[in-house]
Amino acid sequence: MSKFWSPLVNDLVPYVPGEQPKMANLVKLNTNENPFGPSPKVIEAIQAELNDGLRLYPDPEGESLRETIAAYHKITPEQIFLGNGSDEVLAHIFFGLFQHGEPILFPDITYSFYPVYCGLYNIESKKVPLTESFEINPEDFKQPNGGVIFPNPNAPTGRYLELQHVEEILVANPDRVVVVDEAYIDFGGESAITLVDKYPNLLVSQTLSKARSLAGLRVGFAVGHPDLIEALNRVKNSFNSYPLDRLALAGAKAAYEDEAWFRKCCDDVISERERVTSALEGLGFEVLPSKANFIFARHKEQPGEVLAKGLREQGIIVRHFNKPRISEFLRITIGTVEQNDALIAGLESL
Amino acid sequence: MSKFWSPLVNDLVPYVPGEQPKMANLVKLNTNENPFGPSPKVIEAIQAELNDGLRLYPDPEGESLRETIAAYHKITPEQIFLGNGSDEVLAHIFFGLFQHGEPILFPDITYSFYPVYCGLYNIESKKVPLTESFEINPEDFKQPNGGVIFPNPNAPTGRYLELQHVEEILVANPDRVVVVDEAYIDFGGESAITLVDKYPNLLVSQTLSKARSLAGLRVGFAVGHPDLIEALNRVKNSFNSYPLDRLALAGAKAAYEDEAWFRKCCDDVISERERVTSALEGLGFEVLPSKANFIFARHKEQPGEVLAKGLREQGIIVRHFNKPRISEFLRITIGTVEQNDALIAGLESL
Repeated sequence: MSKFWSPLVNDLVPYVPGEQPKMANLVKLNTNENPFGPSPKVIEAIQAELNDGLRLYPDPEGESLRETIAAYHKITPEQIFLGNGSDEVLAHIFFGLFQHGEPILFPDITYSFYPVYCGLYNIESKKVPLTESFEINPEDFKQPNGGVIFPNPNAPTGRYLELQHVEEILVANPDRVVVVDEAYIDFGGESAITLVDKYPNLLVSQTLSKARSLAGLRVGFAVGHPDLIEALNRVKNSFNSYPLDRLALAGAKAAYEDEAWFRKCCDDVISERERVTSALEGLGFEVLPSKANFIFARHKEQPGEVLAKGLREQGIIVRHFNKPRISEFLRITIGTVEQNDALIAGLESL
Repeated sequence: MSKFWSPLVNDLVPYVPGEQPKMANLVKLNTNENPFGPSPKVIEAIQAELNDGLRLYPDPEGESLRETIAAYHKITPEQIFLGNGSDEVLAHIFFGLFQHGEPILFPDITYSFYPVYCGLYNIESKKVPLTESFEINPEDFKQPNGGVIFPNPNAPTGRYLELQHVEEILVANPDRVVVVDEAYIDFGGESAITLVDKYPNLLVSQTLSKARSLAGLRVGFAVGHPDLIEALNRVKNSFNSYPLDRLALAGAKAAYEDEAWFRKCCDDVISERERVTSALEGLGFEVLPSKANFIFARHKEQPGEVLAKGLREQGIIVRHFNKPRISEFLRITIGTVEQNDALIAGLESL
């Protein structure tokens, strides 16, 4: 602490991202990255932007990328807000749409950045407990609030909420923004983007870091009614006019222009997820049903912390959260066939 | 306005960046970009990062880039905070270091993003008038405040404040952070980075968008005492863990590894600045003494707005601010020899 700090800095509890170890040859299954690289078309598109043009500012509105995403999702560019990864998009959402003097609602077990944003912007929150089986119960989101946010599929559980239940939450909260954080939607879920024309209170956030294999490029976006998008643009343009660089804009656009690559990556992750799930069940794990590119599993006898440590000693990194209700679980990213084999063998040896 | 907006969104007055026109063949002298592209070493370094590694998150701390910048400026990595352009760095500074319940001070004529940040974070400000000759008078910054910020050289005037006067402001404000925004320092000024070990209240911000020819890559940083840097890291890690992508980190690092390229670009801009200044003086302009990569000039007879419009009709874009005290001025970025010739010919024809 320092006399120079704005007083609220003392109380900030920052987000702790999954470790990015610098050692080579690790089996890195801790931050839900895609095991497959981006489409070769992405590399080519960035290549084409890699020239003297870097001396010029990028398009602050990312118009060309918004047009591409709009065409892909059959919406309009005015329904899209771009940001430096979905984390930045979410920060602007909390600032611009969640400050209403009432606590916002999110699940008790969910993406751990939500309470951090609340701390940053002094927004009260109320944690809504998941059911015993770690599911979101829409009934629990029918209470006064300043806004609602949940990931679908949820993280770190991987559990998916059917769209009809998402709609229940939207209908119950006509005066509040309901944010569906779809970082992992492409691994088996159905996007709520199809509902944005029907619900002016719906905002859907997505990222190119997972299914599009571009965590290293930092691109995310939100989709919703133009009124909601305008709030986000006002905040963004009061913060940083150009959050996406020229290379990121070009690469992200190209990622939407290779559907075959995208589909194959998702399909391969999904089939490996099913294989890893079966293998872990065979080893005595309970594995929650997942529609994400990770699984959340606990062993019937061995504590999560012990298993995570044992795997680490073998050069296999998974994520363990030392938190109420989930401290027995491991969150394991689905890797390549070889990585998953190493994981299974590693667990067998413990 | 919408019932869904956080009420403060209604009052936001966002920053308006200089136009990024999409037409080709313009003489674009409106956003202070470097007329020369980045070093070929930058292109090579990005090339080397352009692979499957994009599926992985970047280093959230940008350690390697901080080490390079630290070595360059003979400081330590712990004295450096990285951000997505210096605009993002400044936003975090306003949030993390300027909320003390007293108005912050900045010049009446300065970078127009400062009052926008104040609006975003509800920080009071007091504009300190520049002198008649558009200079900063250090005496005027010896009054109670919540923090001080000014660009050096100042924008849009281009005027430079000698380091001894910067020190006067630092000495007068031992309990407040003094931010020296050095976006344009490399075009003839001396950086206050040499003073950070002496003044724990000094924070210097710089960008790679100007002298390093990388506006399209979005990299900026702040240098100061580790206590100040810690405040910024807390805010950043409560907002977005990974604001710099893998390609930006690699390209920025390489930009510091080609000193010859950097020096030549700066020298060429400086010599062209002197040539353009003389030419404009010959055309009846008063040109403020500039240490930036732009000049700020007013014609003895013709209004700035008329001149800007006349240039635009010839495909030459400069910046005109319709604001008190400076509405007669044009801010003109120094371009290539050819661009500057076009500018001079364009003005001659008006």
